[in-house]
Amino acid sequence: MGHSATWFQQLRKLSYANISGGLIEKGQSRVIDASLTLIRERAKLKGELVRSLGGVKASATLLGIPLGHNSSFLQGPAFAPPRIREAIWCGSTNSSTEEGKELNDPRVLTDVGDVPVQEIRDCGINDDKLMNIISESVKIVMEEETLHPLILGGDHSISYPVVRAISEKLGGPVDILHLDAHPDIYDAFEGNKYSHASPFARIMEGGHARRLLQVGLRSINKEGREQGKRFGVEQYEMRTFSRDRQMLENLRLGQGVKGVYISVDVDCLDPAFAPGVSHIEPGGLSFRDVLNILHNLQADVVAADVVEFNPQRDTVDGMTAMVAAKLVRELTAKISK
Amino acid sequence: MGHSATWFQQLRKLSYANISGGLIEKGQSRVIDASLTLIRERAKLKGELVRSLGGVKASATLLGIPLGHNSSFLQGPAFAPPRIREAIWCGSTNSSTEEGKELNDPRVLTDVGDVPVQEIRDCGINDDKLMNIISESVKIVMEEETLHPLILGGDHSISYPVVRAISEKLGGPVDILHLDAHPDIYDAFEGNKYSHASPFARIMEGGHARRLLQVGLRSINKEGREQGKRFGVEQYEMRTFSRDRQMLENLRLGQGVKGVYISVDVDCLDPAFAPGVSHIEPGGLSFRDVLNILHNLQADVVAADVVEFNPQRDTVDGMTAMVAAKLVRELTAKISK
Amino acid sequence: MGHSATWFQQLRKLSYANISGGLIEKGQSRVIDASLTLIRERAKLKGELVRSLGGVKASATLLGIPLGHNSSFLQGPAFAPPRIREAIWCGSTNSSTEEGKELNDPRVLTDVGDVPVQEIRDCGINDDKLMNIISESVKIVMEEETLHPLILGGDHSISYPVVRAISEKLGGPVDILHLDAHPDIYDAFEGNKYSHASPFARIMEGGHARRLLQVGLRSINKEGREQGKRFGVEQYEMRTFSRDRQMLENLRLGQGVKGVYISVDVDCLDPAFAPGVSHIEPGGLSFRDVLNILHNLQADVVAADVVEFNPQRDTVDGMTAMVAAKLVRELTAKISK
Amino acid sequence: MGHSATWFQQLRKLSYANISGGLIEKGQSRVIDASLTLIRERAKLKGELVRSLGGVKASATLLGIPLGHNSSFLQGPAFAPPRIREAIWCGSTNSSTEEGKELNDPRVLTDVGDVPVQEIRDCGINDDKLMNIISESVKIVMEEETLHPLILGGDHSISYPVVRAISEKLGGPVDILHLDAHPDIYDAFEGNKYSHASPFARIMEGGHARRLLQVGLRSINKEGREQGKRFGVEQYEMRTFSRDRQMLENLRLGQGVKGVYISVDVDCLDPAFAPGVSHIEPGGLSFRDVLNILHNLQADVVAADVVEFNPQRDTVDGMTAMVAAKLVRELTAKISK
Amino acid sequence: MGHSATWFQQLRKLSYANISGGLIEKGQSRVIDASLTLIRERAKLKGELVRSLGGVKASATLLGIPLGHNSSFLQGPAFAPPRIREAIWCGSTNSSTEEGKELNDPRVLTDVGDVPVQEIRDCGINDDKLMNIISESVKIVMEEETLHPLILGGDHSISYPVVRAISEKLGGPVDILHLDAHPDIYDAFEGNKYSHASPFARIMEGGHARRLLQVGLRSINKEGREQGKRFGVEQYEMRTFSRDRQMLENLRLGQGVKGVYISVDVDCLDPAFAPGVSHIEPGGLSFRDVLNILHNLQADVVAADVVEFNPQRDTVDGMTAMVAAKLVRELTAKISK
Amino acid sequence: MGHSATWFQQLRKLSYANISGGLIEKGQSRVIDASLTLIRERAKLKGELVRSLGGVKASATLLGIPLGHNSSFLQGPAFAPPRIREAIWCGSTNSSTEEGKELNDPRVLTDVGDVPVQEIRDCGINDDKLMNIISESVKIVMEEETLHPLILGGDHSISYPVVRAISEKLGGPVDILHLDAHPDIYDAFEGNKYSHASPFARIMEGGHARRLLQVGLRSINKEGREQGKRFGVEQYEMRTFSRDRQMLENLRLGQGVKGVYISVDVDCLDPAFAPGVSHIEPGGLSFRDVLNILHNLQADVVAADVVEFNPQRDTVDGMTAMVAAKLVRELTAKISK
Repeated sequence: MGHSATWFQQLRKLSYANISGGLIEKGQSRVIDASLTLIRERAKLKGELVRSLGGVKASATLLGIPLGHNSSFLQGPAFAPPRIREAIWCGSTNSSTEEGKELNDPRVLTDVGDVPVQEIRDCGINDDKLMNIISESVKIVMEEETLHPLILGGDHSISYPVVRAISEKLGGPVDILHLDAHPDIYDAFEGNKYSHASPFARIMEGGHARRLLQVGLRSINKEGREQGKRFGVEQYEMRTFSRDRQMLENLRLGQGVKGVYISVDVDCLDPAFAPGVSHIEPGGLSFRDVLNILHNLQADVVAADVVEFNPQRDTVDGMTAMVAAKLVRELTAKISK
Repeated sequence: MGHSATWFQQLRKLSYANISGGLIEKGQSRVIDASLTLIRERAKLKGELVRSLGGVKASATLLGIPLGHNSSFLQGPAFAPPRIREAIWCGSTNSSTEEGKELNDPRVLTDVGDVPVQEIRDCGINDDKLMNIISESVKIVMEEETLHPLILGGDHSISYPVVRAISEKLGGPVDILHLDAHPDIYDAFEGNKYSHASPFARIMEGGHARRLLQVGLRSINKEGREQGKRFGVEQYEMRTFSRDRQMLENLRLGQGVKGVYISVDVDCLDPAFAPGVSHIEPGGLSFRDVLNILHNLQADVVAADVVEFNPQRDTVDGMTAMVAAKLVRELTAKISK
Repeated sequence: MGHSATWFQQLRKLSYANISGGLIEKGQSRVIDASLTLIRERAKLKGELVRSLGGVKASATLLGIPLGHNSSFLQGPAFAPPRIREAIWCGSTNSSTEEGKELNDPRVLTDVGDVPVQEIRDCGINDDKLMNIISESVKIVMEEETLHPLILGGDHSISYPVVRAISEKLGGPVDILHLDAHPDIYDAFEGNKYSHASPFARIMEGGHARRLLQVGLRSINKEGREQGKRFGVEQYEMRTFSRDRQMLENLRLGQGVKGVYISVDVDCLDPAFAPGVSHIEPGGLSFRDVLNILHNLQADVVAADVVEFNPQRDTVDGMTAMVAAKLVRELTAKISK
Repeated sequence: MGHSATWFQQLRKLSYANISGGLIEKGQSRVIDASLTLIRERAKLKGELVRSLGGVKASATLLGIPLGHNSSFLQGPAFAPPRIREAIWCGSTNSSTEEGKELNDPRVLTDVGDVPVQEIRDCGINDDKLMNIISESVKIVMEEETLHPLILGGDHSISYPVVRAISEKLGGPVDILHLDAHPDIYDAFEGNKYSHASPFARIMEGGHARRLLQVGLRSINKEGREQGKRFGVEQYEMRTFSRDRQMLENLRLGQGVKGVYISVDVDCLDPAFAPGVSHIEPGGLSFRDVLNILHNLQADVVAADVVEFNPQRDTVDGMTAMVAAKLVRELTAKISK
Repeated sequence: MGHSATWFQQLRKLSYANISGGLIEKGQSRVIDASLTLIRERAKLKGELVRSLGGVKASATLLGIPLGHNSSFLQGPAFAPPRIREAIWCGSTNSSTEEGKELNDPRVLTDVGDVPVQEIRDCGINDDKLMNIISESVKIVMEEETLHPLILGGDHSISYPVVRAISEKLGGPVDILHLDAHPDIYDAFEGNKYSHASPFARIMEGGHARRLLQVGLRSINKEGREQGKRFGVEQYEMRTFSRDRQMLENLRLGQGVKGVYISVDVDCLDPAFAPGVSHIEPGGLSFRDVLNILHNLQADVVAADVVEFNPQRDTVDGMTAMVAAKLVRELTAKISK
Repeated sequence: MGHSATWFQQLRKLSYANISGGLIEKGQSRVIDASLTLIRERAKLKGELVRSLGGVKASATLLGIPLGHNSSFLQGPAFAPPRIREAIWCGSTNSSTEEGKELNDPRVLTDVGDVPVQEIRDCGINDDKLMNIISESVKIVMEEETLHPLILGGDHSISYPVVRAISEKLGGPVDILHLDAHPDIYDAFEGNKYSHASPFARIMEGGHARRLLQVGLRSINKEGREQGKRFGVEQYEMRTFSRDRQMLENLRLGQGVKGVYISVDVDCLDPAFAPGVSHIEPGGLSFRDVLNILHNLQADVVAADVVEFNPQRDTVDGMTAMVAAKLVRELTAKISK
């Protein structure tokens, strides 16, 4: 929609006097309630079915958050969730992950659809409320026993409300493995505290994570490094990746906390491997580097996200969609039990 | 999602025995109810606001129906609605239609979001029910005084439930101006009575339209012409367009019925003007031809659709999205009063 | 292959002394014989089958000539025949032509495959012989009663050996309707008498055509106009098309000669309609203009070609391939009886 | 460069105190003088040579103005001049215009290169001065007898300093034929009086034109129409083009004034014919429509521009570059005598 | 052609009764004979010339097999052979391989053209016969002393008839080095025993190979691993490539058998290096990884293939064609002696 | 412009007799003087400003050389400098290099614009003079204390006049680190001693370099290796890169000479990382490989170039422009002090 703000701005400009604030607020509340109810009903249906089948402890559960407006540069990630889903199920590859998890077992991977972000914004609902709606949606999924959120972004700003919800729901902080070209830990970007450059500042401030490991960094400035120190972040830059590789391909995380969250910004990959991103930053990880880190990670992965895929910059044949989809598939294998 | 069927098929294959049919059906009912409630709340908020502002009799109201699975060839139209919205509000053109209607008046054009087609299908809900949900959604919009549906497809199969809802709501048939390369009036395509090749057979059978004018035809076979005759359709083929042009650019429709519906299949245009379609059929209308027909049409246009835009075939810079968006803008000028 | 010349040049440079000329010539003769035999067998099989079915007087018969090396600018037309065939039968359009000819009647449209142009050139066989092989191939098709050649180019240089064969086989000149941005009637281009800029000079010199109508011209210089006068060509330039349109859309050709040949250079179309050509020349015909001319032509069309489609310049989704294919389909309707 | 402002802004932010204003101003003056000297020397060389050859009264003379920063949307037109030159001389078309002017006569078309717009801006020189430099450059070309400016834009903002220079140099107003989707006559756009949406307001205010005919309009709002009336502009909208066509294809302009200026915004064409523009506005002229208007125009054309070609939006094979180049070629035929 | 089946199916549907089966079969036999004769004559000519020059023991000999219909997903590889040839000889690189073999020595690399796969299928000839024709073609090449087949695919289904022919001609099994993302060893795919997912099952069943090493695997399911065990295949998955690299870059193969065959599926490469494939599977080999394996392989390489390049998915500038061509060049260096 | 030669050739052909040679030569001299004056004034302004700010010893100073005509294959690198500048300052990345140098300090990176190569050639000035003008331009930059040239090519032929100027200005040879797929050390290419395949032959003959290290080589023939030996070049081929890596990532250069020059041909990178080059040569360096070599190089880097980026082959979103820009950014960090 993109014009959400505009429609409401025009509305206010033209004739705000005629409209009672209460009318707007009440309507917005009803829209929010109905949005959450829809997610809840989808989650309940899936949860009931999976539990009826029995035999699993954890099902990876896709929840799309088509939000792009907190990006500083391009807003294409708002279009990503349907393209990733299409690539996950496209006929060009088989249904098995690299380590043998079968994705066509309906208990392994399920889907509760998207948070209707664009419709919510088009109703004039502001970002404070939107972030709460996202958190609430994640919690609704987690209320269904066995369902574990696997979030399809959207830009990186969504990781804050998602991780906050998980930490609140689990009752304590998690460890985070964060693969990205950028630290996304700036205090704010152009005054926006919800900017896609800032989610990890919000997460660390809120105490939602204990350890935060950042891997793939290659666009980081003085403030990024200082914020890293301030929050005790373990920042691994690409400059030293050949030296750090051995350690990063043998990580063990999450002991003593409520679990591990994995946040994969598609631009952790070199643009040769993932051209469909808003911020092209050469010198990144290969796809195999990422898989080696994930496959060998020892951790109880409770949830994850794949963010910042921008279909408007993808190749004609959707190579980056396939890359994002394979990340989702392999993360499913980490989450499902 | 595209795998909707698959997930449920797998579910049934694996262990249908363990799951009570009631459990599924009840869950589906709740999802359907919640889906319609969300559309209702959005429509109510927009309706209340427009009526508060006052001064209009009819507001064009966008309702997206991201449905692509009834296409015979490519399913990309499921991705169209967000791309059309983005193009409508993109900064490269101004806010006035060719004849001077101001689109940034919030009473002229409003938006109630999308029918969650993919999520509905992913919950295993079948096409009979889905078509009813679409009809119901259209009626919900029309329940709000002044809101007139302007549908963003989706493939052409959606025109059937949409026109049916309008006719039922208005209490009688409409006249239809249908711009298309194909008559879409086949009895069924590969056994699918909801195929995007068949909506006008369903509409005519159901008595939802009195006159049906088809303009732009250039891929029509014997069955298409026979069905046309059977239902009394006025079929204007491109072969004779230079001869028919004068008449088609001076149409008067809708006298004695409940109003006029306009259905624009983007492939009525020559692919030079609209490459982003699933069925490339050279020899079509120019964009100006279409505007001349629409601008000069004398009619009370009660609703309309723009269908079959396929973003996966569009040019890199989204030329066809701009074309679809301008069609929506000019149709808004026909509907809003 | 493209290196054909090179391989033989290297061969000669390195060690021509060691090789007896006779060895090369004999080998080449055997390759030529085998090439023609293969075409003959394919034509015989198709001819026998069509005649067994009975009920037709003329079947359009595809013969591909993947020759691009006589182009002055780009050689991509050598790749065209398989792409046009793919587009003719692709599932996105139906099997009926605009005027109702059914292409899935096996008697209407048949196919004898390609002249193996690249393999012949790779064997060191020169252009004089190659042109004869092309002529011979066309005659082989015509030897089968009812089979009428519908040639898939290739660059425009192939029209000379094709028309020569037809005229010789029929025993007299034909009339030619030639749609093109260029007159292709230069005496030679950079010394090459077989250049794709010269076939109509060769045809007219040889007396293979009586009338030659050129339509769509918009890149023609002084020599082009002088050669036109010299050979009595009827040249219709785009500059005056709006004036000439009425006449060109009501042509009657071929009285008193052996029949009519239609040569369609895809670049007769404006590049908006057919971007996949080597020589982009804005200001051309629309696709509908071309169809209007062809549909209304009164003539006994004995054969035709579609040339200069360059797949290497086509859009990603092959719009020009679809354009070339529709030209072939509609020409089939003119030829088949 | 794009960062021009930035570099100087950083400079000022960091340490403006240390730098004497005089130092900057003096350096800028010397850069401006040297820039104009370079254009003068190129013009003199070309002028001397053309006059030595003799036999012509007017030579079209290319002057590129690679300026994109006054665009409201995309700045790609700054990259256009070298791409248009490449297309003019590319080997895919011949050297003759449609009406037979030979472009390889060195007296018909000459070239004095580009105004170094980016370098000037990078030296911190502001837009008031830049507009004067452009005007001065045009006058320098006109100082050479027989050389007539044929400007390669750049965005449309350049037409103001160009027309101002021509009118001042000739000693009176001109008539202008302006082909465009937009009237570009807004008083200012977002406060920028030099905006590419405003040049014709500046031209009319300054009295540099007597008649202004605008053809191809299809994105015009209330202000655009009011400004048109205010300045007595003859605005022909696409809505009525089929009615106006006859008149527009038989124009006679320039009687009683110093001559006629033609300004062609590439987006006057429908995006099907010219996709490489910043503002895609469907429903425009065909390329042949434009040529019909230009070929039949009776006027003493003293100068012209081709603006708003955006190579960053062109097709991979540069179709719009070919379109812009053919416009330049045909305008050359109007100017050269 | 793609419609081959269709044409014959239509033929049979329409009027099979009228046609004697013998007529069809005899015609098909003559077409097959003529096809093989043409390959034989080309091979003889090349063989005679190479032997006349003397001084070599083995010449790599290109044989194209443009077959795509056994693919499960996309059929583009049928268009590959001419594109690979064009890239081999394109002027952008020099004539020397990385280890110094000179490709412009006519004895090092020769070419016998394509098996006319599409024409054969268009004549109604079935896959059993087609596979025999391919085998026969390979044997015909090998009948010429010194000529060693270097096959240009085509989809991977062609490796079965090729390896079978080689093993039969040499009189015993070979060792195979197979680079691929997939094991292609499934018993059948959707009932097709000739599927491009099954050639290595056919090869191993037939005893045509002793050792089979598969490198680059990353899309393999349970059946793929079980078939691997069943046939004693050495399967090296990408998951462990960093561990296996040392060994794979120092292979020694072929002792005690008739020689070594190398089969390179272009999708063994990560799609970053080779986007032009039907099955995008991230996480593959780099181009240098492949060259390191090939350069250091100690083996008597008797023949090879490069398959599954899909030009319809390649970048606009044909990067994957260049990749396939360089594979062919470096394999030429392994084969030629 | 591309037609420069043509215009002058036409001029000479048509009527050379009428024009005195002196007239041409004098005009050309004045154009050359004015061109150099403009560069001098830009360099002086930037030099004065940087020195006013104080606190730096060396500022990287961009000088564009848009020269493409010495390429053997494609001439697109002539369009590179403005695209690289745009990418350096585009908003998608931050202003800090990987090792923390701040690019928005106006003393770190400055810009003197382009040598007007196309305009110079268009005035009929030959390559001998053009090469001198390039050398002179580099020296003019170096005359400003603290300004160090960072050259934006253009094809590789420009490295010769650039290095010659540096060596002459510094009074002795430099060491050169040369990253490239090709050695570019051929004596001449098709008779052109200034070919982009020959600059390092000219540099070594002239004694302008002491050590020359070539890294990334993978398209080199016998002459390339012999010329390497003749001039004592240290050639590191990709074939052995895994073995040489350790040493190349720890280089120390420039002891005992006047400094180190770095020449980066973008095609040193594998085309996966940098598709926008004229000569696609698979098997190259990764972007991280290049950064590791540059970051760890111990040397006094006095100047550098980034050449052979071809925007006409880049991806739609300009990935290679971003790659070239990051190379320039990281080289800035090596040069600035």
